[in-house]
Amino acid sequence: MRKPVIGVMGGSEVSADVERMAGQLGKLIAERGWVLLSGGRDCGVMRASTRGAKEAGGTVIGILPDRETSARVSPHLDIAVFTGMGDARNVINVLSSDVVIALPGSAGTMSEIALALKNKKPVILLGYDGVPVGLKAFHEGGGLTMARDPGEAIAAADTILC
Amino acid sequence: MRKPVIGVMGGSEVSADVERMAGQLGKLIAERGWVLLSGGRDCGVMRASTRGAKEAGGTVIGILPDRETSARVSPHLDIAVFTGMGDARNVINVLSSDVVIALPGSAGTMSEIALALKNKKPVILLGYDGVPVGLKAFHEGGGLTMARDPGEAIAAADTILC
Amino acid sequence: MRKPVIGVMGGSEVSADVERMAGQLGKLIAERGWVLLSGGRDCGVMRASTRGAKEAGGTVIGILPDRETSARVSPHLDIAVFTGMGDARNVINVLSSDVVIALPGSAGTMSEIALALKNKKPVILLGYDGVPVGLKAFHEGGGLTMARDPGEAIAAADTILC
Amino acid sequence: MRKPVIGVMGGSEVSADVERMAGQLGKLIAERGWVLLSGGRDCGVMRASTRGAKEAGGTVIGILPDRETSARVSPHLDIAVFTGMGDARNVINVLSSDVVIALPGSAGTMSEIALALKNKKPVILLGYDGVPVGLKAFHEGGGLTMARDPGEAIAAADTILC
Repeated sequence: MRKPVIGVMGGSEVSADVERMAGQLGKLIAERGWVLLSGGRDCGVMRASTRGAKEAGGTVIGILPDRETSARVSPHLDIAVFTGMGDARNVINVLSSDVVIALPGSAGTMSEIALALKNKKPVILLGYDGVPVGLKAFHEGGGLTMARDPGEAIAAADTILC
Repeated sequence: MRKPVIGVMGGSEVSADVERMAGQLGKLIAERGWVLLSGGRDCGVMRASTRGAKEAGGTVIGILPDRETSARVSPHLDIAVFTGMGDARNVINVLSSDVVIALPGSAGTMSEIALALKNKKPVILLGYDGVPVGLKAFHEGGGLTMARDPGEAIAAADTILC
Repeated sequence: MRKPVIGVMGGSEVSADVERMAGQLGKLIAERGWVLLSGGRDCGVMRASTRGAKEAGGTVIGILPDRETSARVSPHLDIAVFTGMGDARNVINVLSSDVVIALPGSAGTMSEIALALKNKKPVILLGYDGVPVGLKAFHEGGGLTMARDPGEAIAAADTILC
Repeated sequence: MRKPVIGVMGGSEVSADVERMAGQLGKLIAERGWVLLSGGRDCGVMRASTRGAKEAGGTVIGILPDRETSARVSPHLDIAVFTGMGDARNVINVLSSDVVIALPGSAGTMSEIALALKNKKPVILLGYDGVPVGLKAFHEGGGLTMARDPGEAIAAADTILC
């Protein structure tokens, strides 16, 4: 009854290419009628993906590490959830997503990929050069899918949600 | 830009009268175009208020204490946020609400009222017999408002959000 | 096998009388060989109770709302747990205590009392003028005990832990 | 004034070799007079490291994902902190450690390594075959050290804490 929720993760400082992929991914998620969930801040993949989804008329939710008063919130959210819990909100991000799509990022993104896999959430890596070494077993086990572009990521999510 | 978020708190086991108030409150929140935020479970004030809002075409978000797999989720949510954090999610409920309206409940509701006041969130008590003794200072300070019925609670929220 | 853990809660700004009671309580907890658990900050009941326990040779643990870098930590802790989770750490305080003793405080203390009762932890109120109105049912049910001075609180804890 | 806290992370199902290393590491931490912090459960690296430290007379703290009532707690803890927060406690583990030493594990361990690096905590990997691909930048930046055996890990921690 609720719409599928796609968690989009990725770095707060990323290349223009990654931002473009994030924006395109957000647009495609919105066009499917899925909800886009992100970390909610106004930078990097969080900003680009939420903007892409919002401009395409989608529903966007952000789960912020901050309390409201200190937060740098993406202006492209329908609903902002303020946790005041720092990185502990990364756990909420993955538990609240039906599928997690991770773009390139740094240690924060890595923690979300690991937490998603630990909690048996399907993970799609978008824009990665090959399967990360520590994750080969998850790739072989089917819990981790590689996608070269946003279209492939959406197709993989479609299969998972089917 | 985002719609105001009204957190509705209250017991998981309540009288038929309180359930009726919760449903009516949900309806009025939806009619204002506000988002209703609740604890998201399928019982008591959580169920009644989300049903009231959803039937009136509102937007409803639930912040659940559970992981998805174990949760008894209200069927009246647009978006379910699964925290897997038990009562720690009570903090998220109040930090993510612009106004907190609390109906009668037990210790869980009491913790949410206290956490809201500690975080300087405006609190409206709906259906209480007088100001609770420990909260008189907050009532005098203006952070705590008493409402006799859902209409009064909505009017108080209106003034706060104005 | 582990020593009993007594959670001591109370305000960050309190009267000299309450500070004196907190210090005395900490001393008595240490003398029993129990572990004192507190919110860990360097003010009010947290400071006074940890100092009392430490000066009497006790074991003291603090569960802080802060990340290490921003924290104002009581110097009287053996172990500091940094949660970075704000008020969500209040839940940890009560879940990690075998008995919760609450001195006077404001909304934060009230939230810890409520969270303890919700989680069926025995609560002792020390230095309160009568049972707070909303808590009468818990007092009648035996989950909430009133103590006039630190000695009475320790005696009540003794009975509970027996 | 407080003793240094060494967080020991690693899998809940590991080889006998890894268990042996974990036990030896716990022993060496205790002999230095440092506090050992672990996830606190009664399996894998958590059990082996806490047993090693406890048998050598050390101080051991466990930060559990569970509520007390459901927990499978290592019997080798001096203090058990019950969070009831599932994987969100991984954040607490790293924020509360002065140095994090990670033995081999699966996605949970990986999330702790990532969260530690994100929070600029020094990380020592013990028993890993080379630097994991995604972590090369942290290794080059000095935040991540490789150790072949417990003695090397302790020496690295010594240098960091010096």
